[in-house]
This record gives sequence, C-alpha cells and structure tokens, in this order.
Amino acid sequence: MKNFHKQRETATANKDQLIIYGRHAVISALKNPRRKIQKLLITAENRAEIDKLGLKTPYTVIDKKDFAKILPEDAVHQGFALYCQRLESYDIRDLTAMAEDKEKCHILILDQVTDPQNIGAIIRSCAAFETLGLVVQDKNSPLESGAMDKAAAGTIEFVPVARVTNLSRAIETLKDNGFWVMGMDGYADTTIDKTNKSGKIAIVMGSEGKGMRRLVQENCDSSVKLPISRNVESLNVSTAAAIALYELSKN
Amino acid sequence: MKNFHKQRETATANKDQLIIYGRHAVISALKNPRRKIQKLLITAENRAEIDKLGLKTPYTVIDKKDFAKILPEDAVHQGFALYCQRLESYDIRDLTAMAEDKEKCHILILDQVTDPQNIGAIIRSCAAFETLGLVVQDKNSPLESGAMDKAAAGTIEFVPVARVTNLSRAIETLKDNGFWVMGMDGYADTTIDKTNKSGKIAIVMGSEGKGMRRLVQENCDSSVKLPISRNVESLNVSTAAAIALYELSKN
Repeated sequence: MKNFHKQRETATANKDQLIIYGRHAVISALKNPRRKIQKLLITAENRAEIDKLGLKTPYTVIDKKDFAKILPEDAVHQGFALYCQRLESYDIRDLTAMAEDKEKCHILILDQVTDPQNIGAIIRSCAAFETLGLVVQDKNSPLESGAMDKAAAGTIEFVPVARVTNLSRAIETLKDNGFWVMGMDGYADTTIDKTNKSGKIAIVMGSEGKGMRRLVQENCDSSVKLPISRNVESLNVSTAAAIALYELSKN
Repeated sequence: MKNFHKQRETATANKDQLIIYGRHAVISALKNPRRKIQKLLITAENRAEIDKLGLKTPYTVIDKKDFAKILPEDAVHQGFALYCQRLESYDIRDLTAMAEDKEKCHILILDQVTDPQNIGAIIRSCAAFETLGLVVQDKNSPLESGAMDKAAAGTIEFVPVARVTNLSRAIETLKDNGFWVMGMDGYADTTIDKTNKSGKIAIVMGSEGKGMRRLVQENCDSSVKLPISRNVESLNVSTAAAIALYELSKN
C-alpha cells in the first residue's frame, strides 16, 4: 500500500501529470500518440480487453479496492487508471492554420467556465459536432483532470484545446483570420436558429451565473441566444453549448 | 447537534420525504403550492432574500458548517435546505388530458436512465423547451432527490413527471390519444432534424450504455437518431435529450 501512496504523491506533485480513469477515457488516451504515458493500472477482469488492443504499454493488475487509494472516492473508474502527462495546449495560431483552407468551420470559446465536468461534457459535444477546437483563458479555466477527461469520454484526445493568455486578443486573431464571432447572451434579440451561420464562426459562451466578461462581449461581432421558454432563466452551460454546436453543425 | 441528526433520521426514514438544497431549487419549491413543506433551514446571509419573498414558511437560521451534517458532503447548498415531501407522481392520463385540445405538443419518455443528476438536467431541458411532461418507469427510475432537484434548478416544480408501472402500456395509451412515438436510436436511418415532427410527438430515450429495452423499442412508431460525428459513439443522455427537445420545440 505504501507504494500506491508514493505514486499518488508523485502524480500530484508534478503539475503536468494526472490520473485518467474510466474505460473510454483510458483506452482513448492509450491510443493517442500525443499522450505521454507513465503507467497503466487495471483490474484483472480488464486484462483481456487491454491485451486485445495490442498496445505496447505495460500494465499492473491491482485490486479494485486499491483504486480508492489513488482516485477520488466517487470516481467511476471501471477498473482503469492511467498515470500520464497532461496534453499540451494548442496555440490560437494552430487553430487558425487548421481553419485556413476550410470554407466553413466552428470554434467554441469559453469565458470563466470553471466546472471540470461541464468542460469535459462540452469537449464531448465538440467532438460530436466536429467543432474545430475549443479556446479557454488559461488563468480562469481548470487544468485537464481525471473528472474532466471522464466527462469527455475519451474525446479530449482528439479535440484541440487552446489555452490562451488573453481571450480578447484570441478573438481578434480569429477575426483577422476570417471568423465571425458570435457571443451567446440570453438578452440578445436574435435566436441562433434564425441567424446567418455560413462561413467560419467562433461562438463565445460565458459561465452560467456571470456570463461573459464585458470586454469579451464587446469584442463579439454579434449576439445570439437560444430560443428557450420564459419560465426558465438559463440552461446549464454544457447543455447550452451542445445545442449551439448542434445548430452550427447543421449548416 | 444531536438535534440535526435526529432530523436527518426522520427525513430519511420516511420514503416520501427529501431535503432539497440550493437557491433555485429551494426557492422554486417554496413557491409551489403542490409542495408539502416541513421546514426551511438557511444561513443568516440568506435571511433577507427569504424575507423579501413574503412567504409564510417559517425558517431556522443555522451555521454554514451545520449543513454538512444533514446534506451529502459535496452538496452545493448555497445556504438553503428544505425538508419537504416528494411531489406526487402524475398519471399518464393526466398528460393525455393536458394534450387533448393541443394541436402539437411533446412528451419525453426515459427508459432505464438511472442517474439522478441526468434526470434533473433533463427536467430542466423539458422546462426550457416547453415539453408537456416526462414519463419514467417507476421501478427502474430513481425517486426525486436533492441531487436531482439541484440539477433541475427549480424546474421540477412545474414539469409534470409521470411514474408509470409499465412503459409499453403508457406508450400504447399515448398512441391511442393521437401521439406519434419516436424512439431515439443511434442505428436509425433518419436524423431527427430531417423527420416529420408535426402534431403530438412522444420521444423515447434509453440509457447511455444499454439503450431502450427491446420491447419498448418495438412499440415505437419510428426511430430517429441525432446527426453526430462517426468519431463519437454517443452523447451523454441529458445532452442528447436537450438536443432532441430543442429540435422538437422548433416546429
């Protein structure tokens, strides 16, 4: 047991390291050549599944009860835990380069969204609706974590995430590269289904309570809202993001 | 402190009782005439907010740290906890009666969705997109809980939820009352945005892993899927429900 405690300390001592858990999250990470892997722990029942993948990562079989020593109490790990490095952040210029020869594509920008599970769920929606990438402000957005990756269900391995120092500057860069920037705002006059969505679009969403910061909002080319009932103040940010990305993907 | 422990035992001993927590959830419950209330506990800082509502419910001011004694450790209570009765279930006949003189309306049916937070988030989406009501099978669906109500952000107070004994029979009743029943199925040929959505529609969703049970699926009039990327196996059930309800609401 001492050994596991040591491993845990190592993992949390290095800010670039994390423990990914859960079947989809771990298997996707193992298949990602960009992911720097330290070690894989599984329960005996998952051995056949891992062997079948034919990967070169060695693994250690541990008891189910030993997962509780390295993971949060409520973590739904399904007998998979992977010690690895956080994925490197993309640069906003990487995203504009990827967009360069496309006629249409979409980028999602989050301002002040701080819940790791919401961000993970949003990454999963980005993957589902083929969003080009996600942009967050480095200092007000949580680092990649086990909970985030679990909610992303493995999709974090292929959705580019750019952590930028200054969101307003990133928005300017996107505009200079042909993007139309829409801010999601419950008080907007136009609903997203009724607005022109052709070409390259970046959509900005704030946090549930506070919305976007004023400076970020002022930098947007237009504002749109979701067509929701007056009985309801707002949607959860990951639900709202999913609907916005779905609506964009249909064009 | 002994006192709180006693209250907790009382609350959990009666299966019709629960503790609702969080600002939106508690304030909505207080305003709902259908909700039978036992007692309200708040922190001193929330006193003015409750007084302003002008409700007749008496309250007790307690210390923030005392909430930990009556609520789950990670509960985001914001200084509000309400001991009350669970809302009474609607009958499927209540929903068909509400639908009777409508030209179009939508009902959501969940089969084997067991996560209370997902169900709460789905109720919030039902409210946002003015879904007539939600139908679940009594024995495979969790009872109303604090976590469910928190995720519903107060909307559980006005979204009718029918807990039925037999889902297939409820589907038959809906069909007899003019509803077209669509099952959500990742393998369907048609996407929901491309299908005819006029009139009264009931949409059935299964759990993320297992989907609908075969008998339930066979009872549907048609199958539809969401238009998601081939890179992604599925969406979280609450995200998928939100998009389906959004799509229906636009017609």
